[in-house]
Amino acid sequence: MSEERWWGWGEAERRVSLGPRALAELATLVGEPVPSPPVDRADVRLPDAAAIPDSVARVVGAENVHTGEGDRLRHSHGMSYPDLVRLRSGRIEGAPDAIVRPADHQQVEGVLQACSREGVAVVPFGGGTSVVGGVDPVRGHLERIVSLDLSRLRAVEIDRHSLTARLGPGLTGPAAERALAVERVTLGHFPQSFEYATIGGFAATRSAGQASSGYGRFDELVTGVRLAAPAGGLRTLETPHSAAGPALRELVVGSEGALGVITEVSARIRPAPEAERYEAWIAPDFASGAEAVRELAQGRALPDVIRLSDRDETRVSLALSGTQGLARRAFDSYLRLRRRAQGCILITGWEGDRETVARRRAIGARILRPAGAVPLGGRPGRAWQRGRFEGPYVRDELLDLGYVVETLETAHTWSRLRALYEAVRTAIHGALGEHGTPGLVLCHLSHAYPDGASLYFTFLAPRRAGAEIEQWRAVKSAACAAILSAGGTITHHHAVGRDHVPYMEAEIGELGLDVLRAAKARLDPAGIMNPGKLLA
Amino acid sequence: MSEERWWGWGEAERRVSLGPRALAELATLVGEPVPSPPVDRADVRLPDAAAIPDSVARVVGAENVHTGEGDRLRHSHGMSYPDLVRLRSGRIEGAPDAIVRPADHQQVEGVLQACSREGVAVVPFGGGTSVVGGVDPVRGHLERIVSLDLSRLRAVEIDRHSLTARLGPGLTGPAAERALAVERVTLGHFPQSFEYATIGGFAATRSAGQASSGYGRFDELVTGVRLAAPAGGLRTLETPHSAAGPALRELVVGSEGALGVITEVSARIRPAPEAERYEAWIAPDFASGAEAVRELAQGRALPDVIRLSDRDETRVSLALSGTQGLARRAFDSYLRLRRRAQGCILITGWEGDRETVARRRAIGARILRPAGAVPLGGRPGRAWQRGRFEGPYVRDELLDLGYVVETLETAHTWSRLRALYEAVRTAIHGALGEHGTPGLVLCHLSHAYPDGASLYFTFLAPRRAGAEIEQWRAVKSAACAAILSAGGTITHHHAVGRDHVPYMEAEIGELGLDVLRAAKARLDPAGIMNPGKLLA
Repeated sequence: MSEERWWGWGEAERRVSLGPRALAELATLVGEPVPSPPVDRADVRLPDAAAIPDSVARVVGAENVHTGEGDRLRHSHGMSYPDLVRLRSGRIEGAPDAIVRPADHQQVEGVLQACSREGVAVVPFGGGTSVVGGVDPVRGHLERIVSLDLSRLRAVEIDRHSLTARLGPGLTGPAAERALAVERVTLGHFPQSFEYATIGGFAATRSAGQASSGYGRFDELVTGVRLAAPAGGLRTLETPHSAAGPALRELVVGSEGALGVITEVSARIRPAPEAERYEAWIAPDFASGAEAVRELAQGRALPDVIRLSDRDETRVSLALSGTQGLARRAFDSYLRLRRRAQGCILITGWEGDRETVARRRAIGARILRPAGAVPLGGRPGRAWQRGRFEGPYVRDELLDLGYVVETLETAHTWSRLRALYEAVRTAIHGALGEHGTPGLVLCHLSHAYPDGASLYFTFLAPRRAGAEIEQWRAVKSAACAAILSAGGTITHHHAVGRDHVPYMEAEIGELGLDVLRAAKARLDPAGIMNPGKLLA
Repeated sequence: MSEERWWGWGEAERRVSLGPRALAELATLVGEPVPSPPVDRADVRLPDAAAIPDSVARVVGAENVHTGEGDRLRHSHGMSYPDLVRLRSGRIEGAPDAIVRPADHQQVEGVLQACSREGVAVVPFGGGTSVVGGVDPVRGHLERIVSLDLSRLRAVEIDRHSLTARLGPGLTGPAAERALAVERVTLGHFPQSFEYATIGGFAATRSAGQASSGYGRFDELVTGVRLAAPAGGLRTLETPHSAAGPALRELVVGSEGALGVITEVSARIRPAPEAERYEAWIAPDFASGAEAVRELAQGRALPDVIRLSDRDETRVSLALSGTQGLARRAFDSYLRLRRRAQGCILITGWEGDRETVARRRAIGARILRPAGAVPLGGRPGRAWQRGRFEGPYVRDELLDLGYVVETLETAHTWSRLRALYEAVRTAIHGALGEHGTPGLVLCHLSHAYPDGASLYFTFLAPRRAGAEIEQWRAVKSAACAAILSAGGTITHHHAVGRDHVPYMEAEIGELGLDVLRAAKARLDPAGIMNPGKLLA
């Protein structure tokens, strides 16, 4: 196994190089930042660890309690921008006192009971890929804190006949898919964090994969959950549906470790696709491209993957793609020739058996062509597919170069999507400008539904050394305020974590928050579960 | 407007006559019961009404508080078997002290606050069609009770572009569809109770329409809800999705009036279908028919309506259909000719634009034919479609004739559906036999999903005069026990109401129940909302 990159994403040795032309292009677009590599590992100091109670260790056995510095550092952060800025600078905010690795549901319950009695905060930890601070070791009112690492809960039980599987929360995306591949089935859940994120995290955060238009978001795949809470265990039926009152499953899904620990997920699976067809189109502009996506969604003709970049994202991704995908110059000439200077890239991905892919693709084309979209063929589609998990590596490169780079996402109905897009874009540009660091704001529309779609924004600007968090917070706050006043949701699939806590009241109302707090008080009376997240 | 049938379903004058041959057939199959018409209306005595507080009346105005006997009788029951048995015998269990008709959300909040202060129980009332006692005027620990009639909350706001609509909870199915038809859109939600049930009731009970395989269950259509609770108001965003924590929407949907009153529903709508194609097939037997439905569901080839009757339901529905649909004798010869003595009727319904219907239907046929299903053409399909809302009228006829007739439904994964079917069927037959009234047990599979399906049972036997409720309870209890021990859900779409309360702990666990009770305590601290239902 390759060494982990302690200061960022994935494997230490795997780099996604941007190349000199891309770097020059970026410098032209947003100015040249001051390179800012991470500090030396030796300069990173962790706070001293408090001793955790014997009663906790007894549940899992001493060999499954880790207090080494490497383990504590690895569990001291997720993958949010503030997490990474702190990590790279060596200014660790806090670290768990210990990492506890239970073997199964019973042990999770045992650990939670012991921690509840002893007043020890618990942060459930899967892949540690949260981009909103969801696994940050926040102690709240408690003095001790453990990271509950779920990597040993990896059971897999496949019901091929019903196309469902019971999956342990500690399975990473690839581990789950490898187990499913033996029976030629798949979850079809491929978020950008796929390579490291886990089944438990997918459920706890309402993750949406890149192919969610076809396979469904993760919360749509989940048919049953088992929860271990300090107050006891809870299991929902695995029947395809029930009308027996409010859906407890939907209270557990999205609970982000604040109500308890998801110890088992039952999910719908699909036959592994026999064929995949990814391609790119150029839509005349963002508005007409969005209209075409709406028509696909409302005509039950959505591809499994759909992703429409706005003009700026189209230009920047072409600039950064270097020799991959389309050659930039050829593309520019092509656009001019076809008078598509406002052109927006649209990625479509179809999966399934060959015949179905061919049929659905033909139906899709019958909607896209009259909308003015021009096919670019399979090459750029496959290039997107190859690079679909590379975003976090690119982010590390950009952080090294001295950029602030952050993503945020929202969603709304088709009628209100354009206003939301303009409002958020304007807010981010404004806030970057006010901070003296004008930059790029890129957006794509994805995760389309008959009634609306999500918008995924990326912003990029030179990082303000010494004021990284302030700069980020100013932009993030402006974007969130714009989202809320446009009536969008504060998050379509990144979840609440720590970063979105201040917006929860605007999102669900004071009474709504209180209802969730009442549920939490029953499940977690001592308030040990993931302090500072979701309902803090 | 025609007169309502005070002792049962729908319009007093509308009868669905069974015909002499059907009656003879039934008598042969289950024995001849003693006819038992309802008592005279004049013999029905309601308990005296307590006075309701002025503060309640002031919110809605005295003209919207009704205490007349007709109104009280109409709101004294739903449409469950025990409800009807009591009603027909004139032995009214209880009646609301008044019917209160608020005009809008604010008035609903006002009424709930006043009732909460004064200790008056509130039963939200839409169409009064609950088949599980959901609107029975149960006082719980309180002395006074009002029925909160939502018939004035009938707002309609259509967003054609996003294919969503905001709908008032008091709209009946037909009223909502008439308003939507103006814009050539539809909810596609057609449960058997469609003609009288309301939007609010659909949401509060997780209703599933007969076309749920195509259009989705009602809880899948809902994108946002507004709730008025004694503790205040709550509104969820109407965005197509949000990852901002647990889904409060899913706590309100299915809450059956026990948490508050749903005052607005935002729901997905669809273009009205240009074409409809209903037809029938004969599957060789129930098991292979179910396998064919599974293949349709897992191959993304489900019709909008799918319904597979078991052998007994097939035979009885042919017997009862009289001159409608297929002539019985011709059908029998047909079956013998094709050696389909175990034959099970499968109804398929396709809706949409002509081309899509044709395409999907052809794909469906390519799965059904190799499974041994034989097409019977459009006539029996259309006959089913014509009679799709007649079930409750037929029930009234059967009650007049002296039968006990009840339906119950469950669901499970495909792997466990057969065992569930056998267990429930055996349990109902056994309990009927033990009561000295052997009878018919009919079942159909409907509401199919990739991972499973629901089973809908009907049982029919001579009614035990003077021991109607005991007879019913014995059979219902046996069926529920069988469902739970087979791991099925206690209800796929009839909801919990009063009849399923004893099974909620088995369904969601003690801790699950406690969590819902904690949410209720926050929203309804005085416990006035729909006592005796859901969480009682």
